[in-house]
Amino acid sequence: MIHAGELVTCAGRGGTAEEELEVVEDGALLVAKGKVVWTGTTRQLLQKNLGKAKKSIDAQGSLVTPGFVDPHTHLVYAGSREDELERKAAGESYISILAGGGGILRTVRETRASSAAALASESVGRLSQLMKNGVTTAEVKTGYGLDLAGETKMLAAIRRLGRVSPVELIPTFLGLHARPPEFRDSKEYADHVTRDILPAVAAERDRPTFSDCFCEAGVFSAAECSAYLRASRSLGFRLKIHADEFAESGGAGVAAELGCVSADHLGRSDISGARAMANQGVTAVLLPGTSLYSSIPYADARGIIAAGCRVALGTDLSPNSWVESPQFVMSLACTGMRMTPAQTLLGFTKHAAAAVARSDIGVLAEGSQADFVIHGVPGYRFIPYRVGGSYVLSVFKRGRLVYDSGES
Amino acid sequence: MIHAGELVTCAGRGGTAEEELEVVEDGALLVAKGKVVWTGTTRQLLQKNLGKAKKSIDAQGSLVTPGFVDPHTHLVYAGSREDELERKAAGESYISILAGGGGILRTVRETRASSAAALASESVGRLSQLMKNGVTTAEVKTGYGLDLAGETKMLAAIRRLGRVSPVELIPTFLGLHARPPEFRDSKEYADHVTRDILPAVAAERDRPTFSDCFCEAGVFSAAECSAYLRASRSLGFRLKIHADEFAESGGAGVAAELGCVSADHLGRSDISGARAMANQGVTAVLLPGTSLYSSIPYADARGIIAAGCRVALGTDLSPNSWVESPQFVMSLACTGMRMTPAQTLLGFTKHAAAAVARSDIGVLAEGSQADFVIHGVPGYRFIPYRVGGSYVLSVFKRGRLVYDSGES
Repeated sequence: MIHAGELVTCAGRGGTAEEELEVVEDGALLVAKGKVVWTGTTRQLLQKNLGKAKKSIDAQGSLVTPGFVDPHTHLVYAGSREDELERKAAGESYISILAGGGGILRTVRETRASSAAALASESVGRLSQLMKNGVTTAEVKTGYGLDLAGETKMLAAIRRLGRVSPVELIPTFLGLHARPPEFRDSKEYADHVTRDILPAVAAERDRPTFSDCFCEAGVFSAAECSAYLRASRSLGFRLKIHADEFAESGGAGVAAELGCVSADHLGRSDISGARAMANQGVTAVLLPGTSLYSSIPYADARGIIAAGCRVALGTDLSPNSWVESPQFVMSLACTGMRMTPAQTLLGFTKHAAAAVARSDIGVLAEGSQADFVIHGVPGYRFIPYRVGGSYVLSVFKRGRLVYDSGES
Repeated sequence: MIHAGELVTCAGRGGTAEEELEVVEDGALLVAKGKVVWTGTTRQLLQKNLGKAKKSIDAQGSLVTPGFVDPHTHLVYAGSREDELERKAAGESYISILAGGGGILRTVRETRASSAAALASESVGRLSQLMKNGVTTAEVKTGYGLDLAGETKMLAAIRRLGRVSPVELIPTFLGLHARPPEFRDSKEYADHVTRDILPAVAAERDRPTFSDCFCEAGVFSAAECSAYLRASRSLGFRLKIHADEFAESGGAGVAAELGCVSADHLGRSDISGARAMANQGVTAVLLPGTSLYSSIPYADARGIIAAGCRVALGTDLSPNSWVESPQFVMSLACTGMRMTPAQTLLGFTKHAAAAVARSDIGVLAEGSQADFVIHGVPGYRFIPYRVGGSYVLSVFKRGRLVYDSGES
């Protein structure tokens, strides 16, 4: 039994983001066996006979939200690329750093040289920072192996990490992330992945749910991504796509055509792509932290929402944009992309859950997983408003306390 | 005695930001009676006879920097303005919110209705978040009283806060911040402040060091600010100015003409203003967090640096931009304003100290105050690179441990 100052269930019905949020002042939450069994007001709760609640948590004066779902991370990798910030400050573009063997390719070299155990151990601190900032479920992509051994090693590292962390991990096989130097062109590499790596990954005992690719001018074309995603689908994967981050590359169209679960980035997608995605129920995952790091324009969040698309947000935690805070991303989404605070909270809860094809997380409703966060602020509008401090008081996963700041 | 993996003293000589930083690998720091008595490498330290060091701190593998100096905050206030994010997301400008009685004027109403004790107690959490993020000295402005009683109450609140927090506070009387509704025009109010409030503040026993004003089209004109600052100077104040945040308003020119210690914001100053400031030794204080919150362009940091100006950075923590993290601002400065990591670190240390007319803080050199931070990262480039997590391990003020994350 949890008493909240302000409870936000994200399980409301209705057309506006504010209605979807369902803000309950003086709210209460009942949890049993790791699931939510009831939500409402404290007054309603007191009218019931509840002598039987084993434990009561007083979060009056605080905000309670669903645990955050981070639907787009590359948090498992070796090494770091802190010096590239300096090169970007001097005006070099991300694509030019990549072309010179930096960027992803540098992380590929370091990840290939690392073991699954070392990768997991190097990543656990990042995952722990996400958890302290309220994340209870995170999608994690491969894509720094770029060969069969490297990619399966990354999957093993993700599984290892999932066993030691209270955060639930959703693995994604990112088959087409970059062309490794041993291949001459993207088509040749895409064919190799589709023919030789994808089936082997599909045959793994604990196989990843999603298959993903990077559709971008100069990286992989829409045609290459489309062929790869079709093959993925026929092997039973759910689909994701990195689309149109730096240039309109047809990625949003591919997402709509193939019914991807999500299309991510969308910095340069035109609005017809967003309309097509909306028609097919594709969730848009926007990553404003990355736009900031790469000094590229933010996605047109308001246009994408107006086109009827469901919009989620992610940290895109990676060696390019080492972002460990949903709050920071929500703040950027409000200030840089002019989303409302309600839209940004849905972006890291219910809509983020949709981006990983889940309906039992990201909401607090009867039957949903009891993943929730107690925040030391009086209301949800403070999440994007208050930046750079740390006011997550405690984090619960399946009803169990997994992080306590010691300040509650 | 502190052993660091990487020690950054910010006390180097030389023309480039990297030389000014003075990065010492495998560094060591000797502290006695709250002051730094020696810096160098651990090897040099071992060659000396140091059986007498009473206590040794092992920060090998970690980064040690001077404590951060936040040279521009409005952290003492009552209430909050979280709903204005929503209005700004809908396209309303900050100046329009202010014109409708929101913005500063709303905070003025709430601050006037509060007591000095309540103001201090409401602000202590914000100051504590700054400290946990490595701040050991913070400038704090008045400016939400806008009458004699309100302004002196704010000064009393700042003094109270300074007594309970380990963070050293530098008070600034912000005489011209906004025109209160009881005055018809800015000139009339500026005259009143200069004639009636300023001398009373100057006569206080524990008077503030600085006097400051908001020079901006639609707020206070360059002529009004100039007259106010001249009066301030004749009463013994050092001078600061909020200049050209939203529009070129002549503020940088006033700063140069009157020899202000700092000119802050500078979002729209032209480069001749920066050159004049450089000639007069005025420190530019840039506040990119505020640009983000107000959806206005970043200051031209590279142009201002190229003009020869010393550039500091601040959080501008206020009800408009509730920013509690120097790291976040340094990251924005790198990504949004394309400053280098070295320039941003100087911005919150040596150059920030210059912006509050201090040379004994912001550096780790013989004789300086022993204010320093141990960061759980291997080098200074990680400070702006890694955003949204919390990796400050411990904070020392005058040689005394004032914050320990429990993770060192």
